[in-house]
Amino acid sequence: MKAAVITIGDEILIGQIIDTNSSYISKALDKIGIATYEMLSISDDKTHILETFRKVQNNFDVVVITGGLGPTKDDITKKTFCDYFDDVLVQDESVLAHVKEIIEGFYKRPITQLNIEQALVPSKAKVLFNKMGTAPGMLMEHGNTVFVSLPGVPYEMKYLVDNELIPYLVEKFERPYIVHKTLMTYGRGESLIAEQIEDWETNLPSFIKLAYLPSPGKVRLRLTARGENEAILSESILKEVEKLEPLIGDIIVGYDEEETIEVIVGRALAKKELTLSAVESCTGGKIAELITSVSGASVYFQGGIVAYSNQVKIDLLKVNSETIKKFSVVSAEVAKEMALNCKTIFNTDFAIATTGNAGPTKGNSEAEIGTVFIAIATPGEVFVEEFNFGQPREKVIDRAVNKAFEMLYKEISKN
Amino acid sequence: MKAAVITIGDEILIGQIIDTNSSYISKALDKIGIATYEMLSISDDKTHILETFRKVQNNFDVVVITGGLGPTKDDITKKTFCDYFDDVLVQDESVLAHVKEIIEGFYKRPITQLNIEQALVPSKAKVLFNKMGTAPGMLMEHGNTVFVSLPGVPYEMKYLVDNELIPYLVEKFERPYIVHKTLMTYGRGESLIAEQIEDWETNLPSFIKLAYLPSPGKVRLRLTARGENEAILSESILKEVEKLEPLIGDIIVGYDEEETIEVIVGRALAKKELTLSAVESCTGGKIAELITSVSGASVYFQGGIVAYSNQVKIDLLKVNSETIKKFSVVSAEVAKEMALNCKTIFNTDFAIATTGNAGPTKGNSEAEIGTVFIAIATPGEVFVEEFNFGQPREKVIDRAVNKAFEMLYKEISKN
Repeated sequence: MKAAVITIGDEILIGQIIDTNSSYISKALDKIGIATYEMLSISDDKTHILETFRKVQNNFDVVVITGGLGPTKDDITKKTFCDYFDDVLVQDESVLAHVKEIIEGFYKRPITQLNIEQALVPSKAKVLFNKMGTAPGMLMEHGNTVFVSLPGVPYEMKYLVDNELIPYLVEKFERPYIVHKTLMTYGRGESLIAEQIEDWETNLPSFIKLAYLPSPGKVRLRLTARGENEAILSESILKEVEKLEPLIGDIIVGYDEEETIEVIVGRALAKKELTLSAVESCTGGKIAELITSVSGASVYFQGGIVAYSNQVKIDLLKVNSETIKKFSVVSAEVAKEMALNCKTIFNTDFAIATTGNAGPTKGNSEAEIGTVFIAIATPGEVFVEEFNFGQPREKVIDRAVNKAFEMLYKEISKN
Repeated sequence: MKAAVITIGDEILIGQIIDTNSSYISKALDKIGIATYEMLSISDDKTHILETFRKVQNNFDVVVITGGLGPTKDDITKKTFCDYFDDVLVQDESVLAHVKEIIEGFYKRPITQLNIEQALVPSKAKVLFNKMGTAPGMLMEHGNTVFVSLPGVPYEMKYLVDNELIPYLVEKFERPYIVHKTLMTYGRGESLIAEQIEDWETNLPSFIKLAYLPSPGKVRLRLTARGENEAILSESILKEVEKLEPLIGDIIVGYDEEETIEVIVGRALAKKELTLSAVESCTGGKIAELITSVSGASVYFQGGIVAYSNQVKIDLLKVNSETIKKFSVVSAEVAKEMALNCKTIFNTDFAIATTGNAGPTKGNSEAEIGTVFIAIATPGEVFVEEFNFGQPREKVIDRAVNKAFEMLYKEISKN
C-alpha cells in the first residue's frame, strides 16, 4: 500500500505558508498501515496538476490532494478533476443546502453566486460531505489509484480525513501493519546517544528501523516495525525498548509518538496532584501557552505572569529592586526571586521562572545575547541554572522553553 | 530559472514532524527571482534518493536538498551523493577544526569518531562551511543542474541559505524578477471579498497573478508579477493596489509580505508611543508570546498575566468575585473587568483581555464550547465583543488571538 500526498498552491511554493496538511494526512494514513512514499507541492496551474496526476496514476494506491477547492478564481482543482477524469460539474443538492445553512444561518448574510458554486462537484465523484465548511471533498477511483481531493483549510481537511477518508480506506483495502514507538530524550546530543547505543542499533532485527530526530535540547528516537503480524511487531519493539533502558534510561522522559514535553509534565503533575505557575521574561508567555495548549491543564496550571519590563518584575512580582540593581535583571538571583515569588503569588507547588536576553540587541541588560537563567521553585527549594543558547532570538526562546520543561520534569519526578 | 526543493527523512513522511525548511528555502529563492516549481519529501532510502536525483537532473537549474547529514546511521545523504556523482569522501581539515572547537570548546567533552566523520565530504563538492553546527553543506554542479545539500536542523539550514547558497546563486545566474505584494485583510470571508473585487481581478494585466490565502479570521491577498524589468513590475503592482483601496480599504490592515498582525500592531504602538498589556484566560499566553516574538517589543509591551484559574482572576487581577458569581467567568462583564484591571496593574495605555471556553470539555463554566469574550481597554473606554469560534480547541485559541489583535488594531488606529 503506497500513498502520495499532493499539496496544490503557489503560496506554498513561494514559501508564504508552511504546509502542515501533508503531515496530518500522512500520519493518519500511517496509523492504518498505509505508507506515504512521497509528498509533493505543486503550483495551482492546470498543466502542472495534470502532469502530476499522470505521474502518480497507477504508481500509487492512494493519492490525497489538498488545496484549490475554495470559491475564488485561483481555485482550479475541481475543474482540473473534470479534465483529467473526463467529467462534468453537477450541482449536489445536499451540499447546496449545507452551504446555505452556513452562509444564511451562521453568518447571517445573503448567499452569493460564488457560494452556490461551492456545491458543484464532478458527476462521477463520491462527495465527501464537509461539515466544517462550504467546500466538499471528492473521491474518484481511476485505474489502480484512488484520487481524493480535500479542502486546504486545516480544520476542514482534518475533519474529512478523520470522518470520511480513513473509514473509506479501512473498508476498501487490506493493509499491512506499521508499528512505531518513539522515545523522547532530553539533554544529550545525538552523536553521543548514537555511540552509547551502537551495539544495540547494529543488532536490531531487519524489520525494525531506527531514526534519530534531533531538535534544540532534545532527541527523539523512533523505532518503526513493518510486517503482517501486529502482535509480533509490537512485542519485538517492546523487547528492543527494554534493552535500551539500561543504556540511556537516565535521559528518557517519555515514550509515546504523540507526546510532547508539556503533555508529559502535565500528566506527571495531575497524577501527583501538584500545581504549577510560571513567570516569564525572555520566553514571553510561550511556556504558559504550551502548558495551556493541553486540554485539561486547568487541573494543575494556575496561571502565570509575563514580566517583560523591570517595573512589572518589581511592582507585580515583588522582586526586590536592590537585587536587580546589584546583580542585573538577567541573573541567577533575580531568576530565583522570580520563581519563589511566583510560587507564593499563585500558591502553587512548583513555579518556573525565566529571565534572559534573547537578542538581537542587548536591551536593558548587560548580559551577553543568548544568556538565559532558568529557575525552578519546588515545594522545598529553588534551583537555578545559567545557559547560553547562542542566536538567533527564536532559537534562544525555543531552547529556553525546552530546558525549563526538562528542569521542571526532573524536579517533579523527585517529588 | 526553475528550482526543486527536496526534503529527505522518514520522519516527515510518517507525519512526525512538519517540514518548515522547504518554505524558508523557497522564500529565499523567490526573493532572488528563482521560482520553486516543485517541493518533494522522500524517504531516507538510497534507492529513493537516487531515483529522485535522476528525475530532477537537467530538468531544474537548482536542486536544494535538506536532511540526512547528521552523524547517525540513518543519515545517508553524503554517501548517496558519492554514489550519484561517482565520488569519494575525503576529510576537510577546516571542517574538522571547527567540529573540534564546538565539541571540545563549547560542549567541553572529548570528540568521538562520529563527530570526526562529520568532517568527511565528497571530494568534488564545494563545501558550505556551517558556523552554526557540525554538519557542513555541500554543493555540486552536474550537467545543467546545481545540487545543494544542507543540514536539516533549521537554524543551520537558514544560516547556510543566507550566507552561502544565496550569494553563490546571485553570483552564478542571471535571473528574472519576481515582485510580490501581499495585503492583509481582517474580518471578511474570501468569497465576499472576491465578489467585491471581481471587476478589478478580471482586468488585472496578464503578468500579474492574484492569490487568496484565507486563514481563521483573516484573508491575505497576494499579487505576483514576473518579468524582466523590475521597475515596471513594481510600478504595475502599486497601481493595482491603489485601485483596490476604494473597494476594500476598510478591511486592509497591512501591506508587506513578511508582516504579521503582531508586527503591524507593534509598529503602530511604537510610532504613537503607546503601551500595552494583556491578561489571558483561554488564550493561555499566546497573545503575549506573539507580541514578544517581535524583537524590540519591550518598548511598548509591559507584560501580561495568564489568569487561568478563577482564583488568579480574583486574587492577582482583582476581578470582583461577585461579578464572576453573577455573570459567570465567561462573560462580557468579567472580560471588561479583566481588561480594565490589567491596564491599571501594568499602567499601560491599552490592555487586551480574553476569557472563554476553548473546549473540548466545558470546564468550570456554563458557556458553550467555543464561546470567547474579548475586551480591549483603551485610554478612555473599554470595548467587549462575544464570539463563538466553534471547535476544535486549537482553532478557538487561534481565532481568539487573531480577533484580539484585530480589535486592538482598530482602537489603536483611532488614537
